[in-house]
Amino acid sequence: MNYRVVTYILGWVLNIEAGLMLLPFIVSLIYGELDKGMAFIWVILGSALVGTLLVVKKPKDTTFYLKEGFVTVALSWLMMSMVGAVPFVINGDIPRYVDAFFETVSGFTTTGASILSDIEALAHCSLFWRSFTHWIGGMGVLVFLLAIIPMAGGTHMNLMKAESPGPSVGKIVPKVKNNAIFLYGIYIVLTLIMVILLVAGGMSLFESLCTAFGTAGTGGFGIRNDSLMSASPYIQWVVTIFMMLFGINFGVYFLIITGKLKAALKHEEARTYFAIIIGAAVIMFIDLKDIIEGTADAIRHIFFQIGSIITTTGFSSVDFDMWPETSKTILVLLMFIGACAGSTGGGIKVARILILIKTFIKEIVSFLHPRSVKKVKAEGKVVEHETLRATNVYFVTFMLLFVVSILLLSFEGKDMVTNFTAVAATINNIGPGLNMVGPTQNFGFFSDFSKIVLSFDMLAGRLELFPLLLLFCPSVWKPKKKSKTA
Amino acid sequence: MNYRVVTYILGWVLNIEAGLMLLPFIVSLIYGELDKGMAFIWVILGSALVGTLLVVKKPKDTTFYLKEGFVTVALSWLMMSMVGAVPFVINGDIPRYVDAFFETVSGFTTTGASILSDIEALAHCSLFWRSFTHWIGGMGVLVFLLAIIPMAGGTHMNLMKAESPGPSVGKIVPKVKNNAIFLYGIYIVLTLIMVILLVAGGMSLFESLCTAFGTAGTGGFGIRNDSLMSASPYIQWVVTIFMMLFGINFGVYFLIITGKLKAALKHEEARTYFAIIIGAAVIMFIDLKDIIEGTADAIRHIFFQIGSIITTTGFSSVDFDMWPETSKTILVLLMFIGACAGSTGGGIKVARILILIKTFIKEIVSFLHPRSVKKVKAEGKVVEHETLRATNVYFVTFMLLFVVSILLLSFEGKDMVTNFTAVAATINNIGPGLNMVGPTQNFGFFSDFSKIVLSFDMLAGRLELFPLLLLFCPSVWKPKKKSKTA
Repeated sequence: MNYRVVTYILGWVLNIEAGLMLLPFIVSLIYGELDKGMAFIWVILGSALVGTLLVVKKPKDTTFYLKEGFVTVALSWLMMSMVGAVPFVINGDIPRYVDAFFETVSGFTTTGASILSDIEALAHCSLFWRSFTHWIGGMGVLVFLLAIIPMAGGTHMNLMKAESPGPSVGKIVPKVKNNAIFLYGIYIVLTLIMVILLVAGGMSLFESLCTAFGTAGTGGFGIRNDSLMSASPYIQWVVTIFMMLFGINFGVYFLIITGKLKAALKHEEARTYFAIIIGAAVIMFIDLKDIIEGTADAIRHIFFQIGSIITTTGFSSVDFDMWPETSKTILVLLMFIGACAGSTGGGIKVARILILIKTFIKEIVSFLHPRSVKKVKAEGKVVEHETLRATNVYFVTFMLLFVVSILLLSFEGKDMVTNFTAVAATINNIGPGLNMVGPTQNFGFFSDFSKIVLSFDMLAGRLELFPLLLLFCPSVWKPKKKSKTA
Repeated sequence: MNYRVVTYILGWVLNIEAGLMLLPFIVSLIYGELDKGMAFIWVILGSALVGTLLVVKKPKDTTFYLKEGFVTVALSWLMMSMVGAVPFVINGDIPRYVDAFFETVSGFTTTGASILSDIEALAHCSLFWRSFTHWIGGMGVLVFLLAIIPMAGGTHMNLMKAESPGPSVGKIVPKVKNNAIFLYGIYIVLTLIMVILLVAGGMSLFESLCTAFGTAGTGGFGIRNDSLMSASPYIQWVVTIFMMLFGINFGVYFLIITGKLKAALKHEEARTYFAIIIGAAVIMFIDLKDIIEGTADAIRHIFFQIGSIITTTGFSSVDFDMWPETSKTILVLLMFIGACAGSTGGGIKVARILILIKTFIKEIVSFLHPRSVKKVKAEGKVVEHETLRATNVYFVTFMLLFVVSILLLSFEGKDMVTNFTAVAATINNIGPGLNMVGPTQNFGFFSDFSKIVLSFDMLAGRLELFPLLLLFCPSVWKPKKKSKTA
């Protein structure tokens, strides 16, 4: 482990977080709530001080393997959450640190699970910061870092690999730095368009910004206790469409921008993603047409909820916990499928599901025709053996973490549906589950122990399991050997 | 597909089933219930007639690939269940055919899920046949067939591979025929010892036989409505111990018989199996010690229930649906783990779980030390790449079938815990689930559609998924090509 380069990057992350915290402070100035806003100033000063000390001297040894990449990413996210929680505690909006930590992890990981029962009691600056963490976490801090700070070659790729969602890092543009700038470009433009459309629908600028942050990051924190249930049909449709847009593989936008419209329309993962959405909508419409009054309302609520769950955003336009079993079961399945790889959404990812199903079909075929050689393909290219193996292992790891988490939560004695969907909703970075953690409920009743377990699940889910789990391997922490065999 | 050899084997299976049905007929003679017992005679005559027609001429072409093996096994089990259900309908003990089919599938697959609300109302011959199906299904009809009928070389191995549980067929003894005889030998001896011990404990011979059939096959059908709740502590302990014994890989018994005691004690899967049992017992004891009065009772019920669930037998000594969440969660996890490969138990199997966890550890290590070459080992030998892949694919297939089944069941509108544990209990061949399918409940309330879905899950679970799924591949049904490339 090359400790120096890791702390150097952590220093930059602290500085960036300090910089980003200026925004909620400005919000507090606008709304005249300086007593609440000063909390951000103290944290900004503290982080910037430590951050500057860490980056003032560039490390000489820039050796940076994948191992360093994973550890840096895991530590960055842990640190960001620990620091980001402090203002809530200082200004008293979330007095207990464990709660504030859970809320901030939920924000950065774009989960959207909340421990708050009365969101509307928070100050504007706190609400803004809470929603803004979604936006930051959606694309990733380290991607941002790569876009603005020059680093040694290996650093880029190994950080991107660790932070980006999906089975493999698609090099969208040849140079990683351009890649990061491109991703943030699309991200900012789409967010701005959404804000404009929301404001045009009569939403206040502040609420439009917060809603767009929650949508862009596929997070789900809103500024109202009823999420978006009382919003107008227009607003609900805008949010529905943008939730789905942010769930598409960003590679598709690159194809569109570079004029390869045909290739974009043929993108296998995006097509499957929309096929799943439409398939789910049809079944749910049959299931719900007699329950929701008015066909237009039924269609709107169905698409809103599907978009919200498959992209793992977690907004709600209606209390879907009251829906019949088939619709609820489909929503739970969508929780696991998740959005496209290379989007801001969570879950297992459509690309992985595709690979798994193709592996299954291949296995059946090679079973029937033992001498045939068939390769699993994705987006027209043969999937490398490494990726296939990694996908299978991801799946196994996912199940193991899932099972252990449910077991740890069971110590509290809550019912099994609550435990199961609480873990499903956090590990897949969705937000609401069913029963006691349903869309109109919150996670506040859990014990501190369970909150920490669920926070871990959120971070593990966002970082695709491995970075966080690696932190528990003792051999990771061995100092770097002089030889380059590590 | 070589149809002729498949129908030849199916003919033998029909003949064997006809022969086995003589036993319940004899029971009806002993208990003077000939009006009920005649049902078996009609079915015996019908099956023997068709069976004899199919086997009277030996097929010339004995080409028998793995594909033929899987199809034969799947069709044999389907046919056995369809035929075995008929006597219940004729003698009126289970008047509806779908119910009788569900019950018979549940018997042969050693699941033990029942649609009957009053078991004690059945005639002795029906009760005997119901329990006897467990004993037949536990070791497998085709294994029995191989033990008694001479067949071409490839036939043996390819049938064993398809019917035997576990990730790989351990060739216990070099010749497959001896293998089959050996397995049935142990099976019969252990069953006899158990019957003697039960009779010694004051149980009637009839009940002892039925209970031993249910235990040996790890099935769980009893002859009383309260399963074994009212049995004496001695009887409960005998059943507990034999449930665990039948859940051990039968390879261990071979090692013991051939004097390789040391190797038997070092058997990795068996050790893990007992480690899981003891680990679960310790956690459950802490969870239950204040709930069950008396330490001895608590220990007995805990081991009984763990043994019953991990071996997927499904007997109950107490209504564990009333236990607290942690214990219930552990039991649900044990449902999935299942017994050892090469035992009569169901579930995912300890050997597979071991391979999955080792793959996971290997992946983490090769991640940290990209240049190290580490192989996954089981029982001291390197696990072949084929087995690893098959295990991963098994896991994926398991999840897909699980998800589809839950979705199909959700159409009925029952609660999610009921649906989830009903599928878990049938696909893993356990028997009782939780809530509406809990240990004191039954599956009778499900619609015919759901009963067929669950019957399919039971068969798929018992035959380890692939044989049954292959029946849906159109290319399986193509007639055999002249060339040997198929």
